[in-house]
Amino acid sequence: MQRKIIIDTDPGQDDAVAILLALASPVEIDLLGIVAVAGNVGLAQNAKNALKVVELSGRTDVAVYAGCSRPLRRELVTAEHVHGQTGLDGPDLPEPVKILEEQHGVDFIIETIMREPEGTVTLCALGPLTNLAMALVKAPAIAARIKEIVLMGGAYFEVGNITPAAEFNIYVDPEAADVVFRSGVPLVVMPLDVTHQMLSTPERIQAFRDLGNASGSAIAEMLGFSERFDLEKYGWDGAPLHDPCVTAYLLAPEIFEGRLCNVEIETDSELTRGMTVADYWHVTGKPKNALFVRNGDANAFYALLTDRIARLP
Amino acid sequence: MQRKIIIDTDPGQDDAVAILLALASPVEIDLLGIVAVAGNVGLAQNAKNALKVVELSGRTDVAVYAGCSRPLRRELVTAEHVHGQTGLDGPDLPEPVKILEEQHGVDFIIETIMREPEGTVTLCALGPLTNLAMALVKAPAIAARIKEIVLMGGAYFEVGNITPAAEFNIYVDPEAADVVFRSGVPLVVMPLDVTHQMLSTPERIQAFRDLGNASGSAIAEMLGFSERFDLEKYGWDGAPLHDPCVTAYLLAPEIFEGRLCNVEIETDSELTRGMTVADYWHVTGKPKNALFVRNGDANAFYALLTDRIARLP
Amino acid sequence: MQRKIIIDTDPGQDDAVAILLALASPVEIDLLGIVAVAGNVGLAQNAKNALKVVELSGRTDVAVYAGCSRPLRRELVTAEHVHGQTGLDGPDLPEPVKILEEQHGVDFIIETIMREPEGTVTLCALGPLTNLAMALVKAPAIAARIKEIVLMGGAYFEVGNITPAAEFNIYVDPEAADVVFRSGVPLVVMPLDVTHQMLSTPERIQAFRDLGNASGSAIAEMLGFSERFDLEKYGWDGAPLHDPCVTAYLLAPEIFEGRLCNVEIETDSELTRGMTVADYWHVTGKPKNALFVRNGDANAFYALLTDRIARLP
Amino acid sequence: MQRKIIIDTDPGQDDAVAILLALASPVEIDLLGIVAVAGNVGLAQNAKNALKVVELSGRTDVAVYAGCSRPLRRELVTAEHVHGQTGLDGPDLPEPVKILEEQHGVDFIIETIMREPEGTVTLCALGPLTNLAMALVKAPAIAARIKEIVLMGGAYFEVGNITPAAEFNIYVDPEAADVVFRSGVPLVVMPLDVTHQMLSTPERIQAFRDLGNASGSAIAEMLGFSERFDLEKYGWDGAPLHDPCVTAYLLAPEIFEGRLCNVEIETDSELTRGMTVADYWHVTGKPKNALFVRNGDANAFYALLTDRIARLP
Repeated sequence: MQRKIIIDTDPGQDDAVAILLALASPVEIDLLGIVAVAGNVGLAQNAKNALKVVELSGRTDVAVYAGCSRPLRRELVTAEHVHGQTGLDGPDLPEPVKILEEQHGVDFIIETIMREPEGTVTLCALGPLTNLAMALVKAPAIAARIKEIVLMGGAYFEVGNITPAAEFNIYVDPEAADVVFRSGVPLVVMPLDVTHQMLSTPERIQAFRDLGNASGSAIAEMLGFSERFDLEKYGWDGAPLHDPCVTAYLLAPEIFEGRLCNVEIETDSELTRGMTVADYWHVTGKPKNALFVRNGDANAFYALLTDRIARLP
Repeated sequence: MQRKIIIDTDPGQDDAVAILLALASPVEIDLLGIVAVAGNVGLAQNAKNALKVVELSGRTDVAVYAGCSRPLRRELVTAEHVHGQTGLDGPDLPEPVKILEEQHGVDFIIETIMREPEGTVTLCALGPLTNLAMALVKAPAIAARIKEIVLMGGAYFEVGNITPAAEFNIYVDPEAADVVFRSGVPLVVMPLDVTHQMLSTPERIQAFRDLGNASGSAIAEMLGFSERFDLEKYGWDGAPLHDPCVTAYLLAPEIFEGRLCNVEIETDSELTRGMTVADYWHVTGKPKNALFVRNGDANAFYALLTDRIARLP
Repeated sequence: MQRKIIIDTDPGQDDAVAILLALASPVEIDLLGIVAVAGNVGLAQNAKNALKVVELSGRTDVAVYAGCSRPLRRELVTAEHVHGQTGLDGPDLPEPVKILEEQHGVDFIIETIMREPEGTVTLCALGPLTNLAMALVKAPAIAARIKEIVLMGGAYFEVGNITPAAEFNIYVDPEAADVVFRSGVPLVVMPLDVTHQMLSTPERIQAFRDLGNASGSAIAEMLGFSERFDLEKYGWDGAPLHDPCVTAYLLAPEIFEGRLCNVEIETDSELTRGMTVADYWHVTGKPKNALFVRNGDANAFYALLTDRIARLP
Repeated sequence: MQRKIIIDTDPGQDDAVAILLALASPVEIDLLGIVAVAGNVGLAQNAKNALKVVELSGRTDVAVYAGCSRPLRRELVTAEHVHGQTGLDGPDLPEPVKILEEQHGVDFIIETIMREPEGTVTLCALGPLTNLAMALVKAPAIAARIKEIVLMGGAYFEVGNITPAAEFNIYVDPEAADVVFRSGVPLVVMPLDVTHQMLSTPERIQAFRDLGNASGSAIAEMLGFSERFDLEKYGWDGAPLHDPCVTAYLLAPEIFEGRLCNVEIETDSELTRGMTVADYWHVTGKPKNALFVRNGDANAFYALLTDRIARLP
């Protein structure tokens, strides 16, 4: 049975792979729309990148919306040092012909959830959680109608990347994350703990290139670009691949293993701002609000990715 | 020349007086619409109260919108202990015939500011700043187009009411206040410092009653109800009258005296959350972002109020 | 009956006046010792200033100790911009002949309180509360034996001086203040609220000069120096006189008027750090731990000061 | 060459093993004294436990001091749920005959460091850092004279135990930890990251029992008691052994592997209070103030322990 989803995203090379995986899986996934948010780079560029990815996949029927261009209350922090000036450096994708929808992305999220049957729409969040939080504050009634939010963000045992205590997506808009984590909506969290296991080794990048299609080549070039930062930082065999864990979870949840526990967002302290404090050992007695994924089968994950990307142009 | 304004409000007896003052002053004030927000009581009741006030004034041409029913990230705190269960206890106002507009209040604010000529619309905020912050986050382009935000909220020398460090409107949604105070929009702040000078003594309440019109009687009954809490707390000759300072400032700014200074909102600490930290003595070197009003002429203020309310039905 | 006291201090022109007032009142006050602390300037200079003040008074029998040279956990902030490079600029006092005791000031406080009968020793704190907090942490048993702590520090309606939210003494070592305010020891607090009423007008300074003794002249010169900063800042008729409120309270408590209420210290937030949050209106239900003085009779205060200082050499 | 050390401790089964390891190694370690601090249980019991351990080892020449009975500014939190009511449950050790020194532990630390040649004394901290911080505040001159502080505390990749973000020793007195970590003294930190690798498996506990001496038997009984809590919580093959990493590091630093990096202590936020934020990946540019140990060779560690404990009575 098809699962209806909205992807909220700041593409981003790994966002692009996550979106392509969804677009390559129409049997399982009904992608109702893509909403851009400020994050890896500014909103306008992220929105353009989403259009480029949709065109690359040939699925130009999928509508793309622009959401919020700034976090709830913080100055926007971006990550050109990782993703390049365009946010999607690597492949030479053509300027998109397709254009953005006029409706604000936050309103698209609200209207879609209110229109579709209760409990049928899943939100997939690949960037800062600004749009989701704005929708929850503007229209609190959506909370009880969302099937699930599956998001890439946070870290516990891997702790942080943009700061020693925080992962980028949560750090950029911790108040938005706080709204989402307190919303009561069922949450599946893909933190650095699992994404740091999904290393894009040279062999795995080559496997995309060997697919011989445009999407596979583009992915190989994207990962070849974005891995530079992490390879130098961590000294590992490959760079982490973050966002595709979200869409892979929709297709093959058995690849992942986690624990239902309490997760709260640090917003007050400058030192630890944006930390996802996961009560992984259940020491606090606080309510369990998220499936916090700790492990994943990297081989199965990359096999799924290459198998599906092979089906795209 | 008429000044175009939007009133954002959680009526509230003192909100009601502030609205009536605007409605009684059509020569100076073009009220483009009223937007309700959760605050003194819940959103639905506040919106209904706004409709009642409009009907009381006979100005049923003025549209009323419902905005946000919850703060950006905090649990809603309300003040039935001050305002009564309906938020507008005191007079026996009929159930409103007029109904709410369908559009969300946040979108009404955005669309109005984008439609009207740049620099012509003033926002008058009488409650928590949730709607204004949501508009600024959803559509940052409005910031440069707003003429001014005149708001009742905060305190410096009078420090706080809902807690020892915070005034109610700011305390309810400190993150929203933070967004507004950092927005770059010119701000005029009516804090407890000035509203605690505007005491509704028995003589002043009687003056409303003596007007002989429905509005005057209703105001007398409203103030007679809401003063109880403050009279017991402070032991003063009358209760502070807060929100009408905002609309009175539009009509007679010379009544008020303040200082342009830096004002920041405390959001991190539980003890001081919601405090408006005003650099009244200019010791920080931070940019001056608000006219922080410290004094007002109470006699002139009440004279203006009774003079204008006399013009209503 | 004589009251046994220890003065903890960072002289400071106003500290000097407070000490001289105590030294001039041997009938009522048995000054067991003076302990210096880092604050207005560094510890070594403050200790030397204490020696100078003792010599000026002719009471060289009073022992002076050096306490802590740094706050519990913050970098030391000093106030040469107010008090001058020596901390006691103004009069030309000779280098002291008297020398410091060898014992650490914190240990002097502990040993004195443990040696004297329970409930007989009052601590008078005129600077940051580092020494008192250190004594309470090192020897918690003293808490139940201290008669009272009378301190100059904090502000509520006058809010702050070193920052918009904090008074200098508390700001310099907020964690120490927190220890003292939670200690359970009876507290009398002389905040800016009252010290800002004790203005050293030209007439009042002249009255010291007219005494014709060395102490009166020195005080006139001290206040003539230290008032410059406040006169420029506030534009008042005279500068506030802070620390002598503490020793004046011992001699004539009827001069002062305050309220027993809960007072807590803000330590977490950068914006409001060091604020003394006084629940003056009893809105929190927290336990009342301090007599928070709000008003004082300035004429009676200065009359007491000149009357007593006249008795010194 | 012998290394002069002071052990600051709240014994604690694992503290006891750490102390015994030092006492069993007189060729390498000159133990100048042991100072108790409040932590696992209250100060009086911790001090008694230290005496018991000294008597068990037969090294009754080693002096034991009582330090602080409370943290700098927090309420004391204890851990009877892990260590039992006595803090040293397990073996049936006799009531000690040896008595405590009269001098306060903080003063013993200060005097020892000021008396011994500069750069020769190492402080080994096995509990909350209250005593060390008090010494550094009371006598800042010791900082430049301490050779090194080797401490068990904190966590980064293992994050926390008493809360999801904090390890017990740091959590109990985060302000004290902050003082120590900012002191400029060279630091070696043994966090949960490494102590969670030192599992007391049944075979390793049996090896202590098989030594046949009183100390080995007592250790086997201690670990048999204290492991219960962790075995149930983590489901591992054995419980972590924390504090002996400190004294083992003095004897065989090659067992351990870490990274010199910046480590700061979270003190402001309730959610993350006591976290040791280690900039393990050098993303902040802050100064490197601690050798943060991440890995250890558990077999070599336990071999060292049993080899040395065999030398005791």
